[in-house]
Amino acid sequence: MTDEYPSILLSNAVDQMASLPGVGRKTALRLVLSLLRRDEQSVEAFAGSFIKLKKEIHYCKQCHNISDRDLCPICSSARRDRQLICVVENIRDVMSIEQTGQYNGLYHVLGGIISPLDGIGPKDIEADSLVNRIAEEDIREVILALPTTMEGDTTTFYLYRRLMSVGDNADKLKISQLARGVAIGNDLEFTDELTLGRSIINRTEYTG
Amino acid sequence: MTDEYPSILLSNAVDQMASLPGVGRKTALRLVLSLLRRDEQSVEAFAGSFIKLKKEIHYCKQCHNISDRDLCPICSSARRDRQLICVVENIRDVMSIEQTGQYNGLYHVLGGIISPLDGIGPKDIEADSLVNRIAEEDIREVILALPTTMEGDTTTFYLYRRLMSVGDNADKLKISQLARGVAIGNDLEFTDELTLGRSIINRTEYTG
Repeated sequence: MTDEYPSILLSNAVDQMASLPGVGRKTALRLVLSLLRRDEQSVEAFAGSFIKLKKEIHYCKQCHNISDRDLCPICSSARRDRQLICVVENIRDVMSIEQTGQYNGLYHVLGGIISPLDGIGPKDIEADSLVNRIAEEDIREVILALPTTMEGDTTTFYLYRRLMSVGDNADKLKISQLARGVAIGNDLEFTDELTLGRSIINRTEYTG
Repeated sequence: MTDEYPSILLSNAVDQMASLPGVGRKTALRLVLSLLRRDEQSVEAFAGSFIKLKKEIHYCKQCHNISDRDLCPICSSARRDRQLICVVENIRDVMSIEQTGQYNGLYHVLGGIISPLDGIGPKDIEADSLVNRIAEEDIREVILALPTTMEGDTTTFYLYRRLMSVGDNADKLKISQLARGVAIGNDLEFTDELTLGRSIINRTEYTG
């Protein structure tokens, strides 16, 4: 394999670049050669940013979102509704929901979802810490915003059962999930029948 | 922009990843998060490979190909035809030709092609060093294997004129270019008319 490249240094760099998910060896070579055309300072800034990220990153001790400090900007914000928690799989979901501008509560990042096939069980995700938050803080509603896959549904059901058994929650804690339905801008004919069925059952009143 | 991400460290790393050609910010985030899931040693190996490449790489003093030493493995090989030079734009072209297994001569990597629109003139590519090689070494044939674009054709014509004026080369140096024609596996209807026209003019005898 190293024989393919005129240099072992180049070969190593291409191997590393191609270790990124979805980056093939041809693309990796193109990217590495583009780095090689930069000056040394620029390459050091490129490489250094990943080392610095890995070494210095914190995870918010409350919601487990990525953060520069012990508490993330969302958890430490005074303008957030602290009685509302949205449970998501990963930090990309936090960013997606933040970008909608429609949510003003806090988050809880599980860091994964239950997937027996991948060997990920309830102990591998931040489920216990979620239960503790519900038990210790004054939470009005938990939104379970997990993927609409079998793994996501399994995790949603697991968390629902755990949360309902916390103290006297069955009475006062509201547990919700994201609305399922026809995507905005989608034709009905391109909507799968499960989703379309759910959108009929859960139809909302049209108020003009 | 940094407000989009929960961490400045993450934002910086995404900026750096997205500075690679063809990598958008969504992809960059996905790649950076995949790095963050690795252990520290693995991230250091990833980042270090690019710094090491930039700091320690050599360019072959003869053909200007990338190399771990002053002379690249091809130029220092005893099994190569030293009277034959293939002139290419960049090191990826060297690799492409090497992978065909059809070429046994040396190379000359220009490091670019003449492109007035991009401000790249004859002085910005390894043209003088090519002329010197032809003047000083015993070269039988030069293959100008440049892209079939306007810039490539301009560079080919420029080099042809320079090489023909070296010493008494007009008599003994053969200058050739890659055959143009219908790509193997291509239907005629998908071949552009310029290429198809050239392939009729330059037809080769069919020997069964």
